[in-house]
Amino acid sequence: MTEPLRQGATIGILGGGQLGRMLSVAASRLGLRCHVYEPGEAPPAGHVADAVTTAPYEDTAALEAFAASVDVITYEFENIPTAALDTLQALCPIRPGREALRVSQDRLTEKTFLTDLGLKTAPFADITDAESLTQALEIIGTPSILKTRRFGYDGKGQARINTPEEAAAAIEEMRGAPAILEGFVEFSCEISVIAARSADGAVACFDPGENIHSEGILRTTTVPARLSQAQRTDAVLLAAKILNALNYVGVMGVELFVTPQGLLVNEIAPRVHNSGHWTQNGCTIDQFEQHIRAVANWPLGDGSRFADVQMENLIGDDLDKLPELATEADTAIHLYGKDAVKAGRKMGHVNRIIRG
Amino acid sequence: MTEPLRQGATIGILGGGQLGRMLSVAASRLGLRCHVYEPGEAPPAGHVADAVTTAPYEDTAALEAFAASVDVITYEFENIPTAALDTLQALCPIRPGREALRVSQDRLTEKTFLTDLGLKTAPFADITDAESLTQALEIIGTPSILKTRRFGYDGKGQARINTPEEAAAAIEEMRGAPAILEGFVEFSCEISVIAARSADGAVACFDPGENIHSEGILRTTTVPARLSQAQRTDAVLLAAKILNALNYVGVMGVELFVTPQGLLVNEIAPRVHNSGHWTQNGCTIDQFEQHIRAVANWPLGDGSRFADVQMENLIGDDLDKLPELATEADTAIHLYGKDAVKAGRKMGHVNRIIRG
Repeated sequence: MTEPLRQGATIGILGGGQLGRMLSVAASRLGLRCHVYEPGEAPPAGHVADAVTTAPYEDTAALEAFAASVDVITYEFENIPTAALDTLQALCPIRPGREALRVSQDRLTEKTFLTDLGLKTAPFADITDAESLTQALEIIGTPSILKTRRFGYDGKGQARINTPEEAAAAIEEMRGAPAILEGFVEFSCEISVIAARSADGAVACFDPGENIHSEGILRTTTVPARLSQAQRTDAVLLAAKILNALNYVGVMGVELFVTPQGLLVNEIAPRVHNSGHWTQNGCTIDQFEQHIRAVANWPLGDGSRFADVQMENLIGDDLDKLPELATEADTAIHLYGKDAVKAGRKMGHVNRIIRG
Repeated sequence: MTEPLRQGATIGILGGGQLGRMLSVAASRLGLRCHVYEPGEAPPAGHVADAVTTAPYEDTAALEAFAASVDVITYEFENIPTAALDTLQALCPIRPGREALRVSQDRLTEKTFLTDLGLKTAPFADITDAESLTQALEIIGTPSILKTRRFGYDGKGQARINTPEEAAAAIEEMRGAPAILEGFVEFSCEISVIAARSADGAVACFDPGENIHSEGILRTTTVPARLSQAQRTDAVLLAAKILNALNYVGVMGVELFVTPQGLLVNEIAPRVHNSGHWTQNGCTIDQFEQHIRAVANWPLGDGSRFADVQMENLIGDDLDKLPELATEADTAIHLYGKDAVKAGRKMGHVNRIIRG
């Protein structure tokens, strides 16, 4: 695939959540259709996609039919089973590519990749059993955090270890899954760089945003982040280094800790990212369109920021604030159309333009 | 219907063209689904709507099933057959209401409504036959323009009369349809006010845009329009007067001529309007979301403009400029996903942010 996708072409999206939904909407602006593949019933992206396949990732026939119906495949989450990717890749290009998935699907592989690139991360250690945890705790110390190497999100699959005595309980929580111990780092703030790379190797980054988490879930992202110009430049160069090393095509979310020792990479996500939602109302081309442009072989768009923005996630009952939010000036509402409100479930977000 | 529509509710849209498409996308931002009713095969709005009914407006069973499946009905064009509206209205509220459709479906009714409101229009006369045209030409003079009273758009169903001798040919072109003769007016420019009114009677207007037409088709809209502050105020008050008189709910496009004698109303369209597309990249809430908010009983959004914008339609072969447009900074592309490129067919538009 070297020509830009033209009107009427179809992008396949693995995953039918809110990210797939907003990717579909962005693709429609470029005249492209989307076909969503999602095991769960009634996915939010299905309301706006041209087609939906409801099937598990183990259904080879469904995967093959899906791949045959689309021009390129992308995804809204990184934990796609490897066998499914093998089936799809034989029939259709997948962007971002397999290397990005391989690296980001496993926290240990990811941290090793980053340190091999010369980037800094929090101290970490491979944990295979109680003994390796004991040894790692002697080096990394407490408090620290034990995480499953794979399949964690929004604080799930994580156990905080405040004292060495809590090690046994923490490893219990991993339920035998391979794990990684991460040291805590002192940081003044957490920021995200939403970076994009096109098929021809051009890289563009949105301005870094500053993130506030609570209970392991992102609450707000504010742009601009409180950074010096030097830090801003470092953040962008560092993100570009990661994308280039992976020969990446698409948008990536790069979470960084701002520390006295410089920027530490917390996590990379090979997809559009919650901390980039502010771009919908702060930029002419948002992260979703930027990702679609990259995946569809278009030139990257102009991601320059024209406003200060605070993105706030609407989680669970936050939806009750809707009547009030709808009357706020300078506030754009983005809801995901999810049927059931559950505690901790991301139901939507708002982007507030901050007037100087 | 007095409560705001909640997540998962469905808006029915009559018409599956680009306006229905962009309305669907806007509705998705508010967590709402759309069901498009369109007689033509493969409508552009179908790529992004949750459901599509393909059936003619004469299919009562299809209309009834459609009405039963949605919470409120709106439309992207005004020329919906009256019988279809009767069927739908018995089952589901239609917004904007019937009065706006009755007035705007007929150029003579519309002009009479406007002048009864005390607003100025170009001189006009009811034309039923050759004799009434001869009489009208004596008063209105030439050049003037003969138009069918109903079903005209983008310059179709119109005949320009440069001299009285051309009257016979012009009336021939009407093919027996009731017609209206309109005098030409000297104007310095044509502007549009995109005005919105909510169910509780609140009115909000976007900044007037300045339109350039060619061959009867809108080419560009630029905001801000070249208007004095007094003209700007007049334009907004005049639009509000129209919406209030119709007890209107939704967005309306009001085209005005700027003349030495003040503002003349050229045309009203009871729907989102091509000349309001700039709001997608110049405002936090665009005309499409504003319309959905009104129709869904939400409070109107903040339509304040944060940038100067020029909207340019991509018509027919203009699509060939796409590779270049995609590399322009500050330019947002909006394509409609139409399969066939035809001369005079609106294929998309671009919004260019104008930096000071």
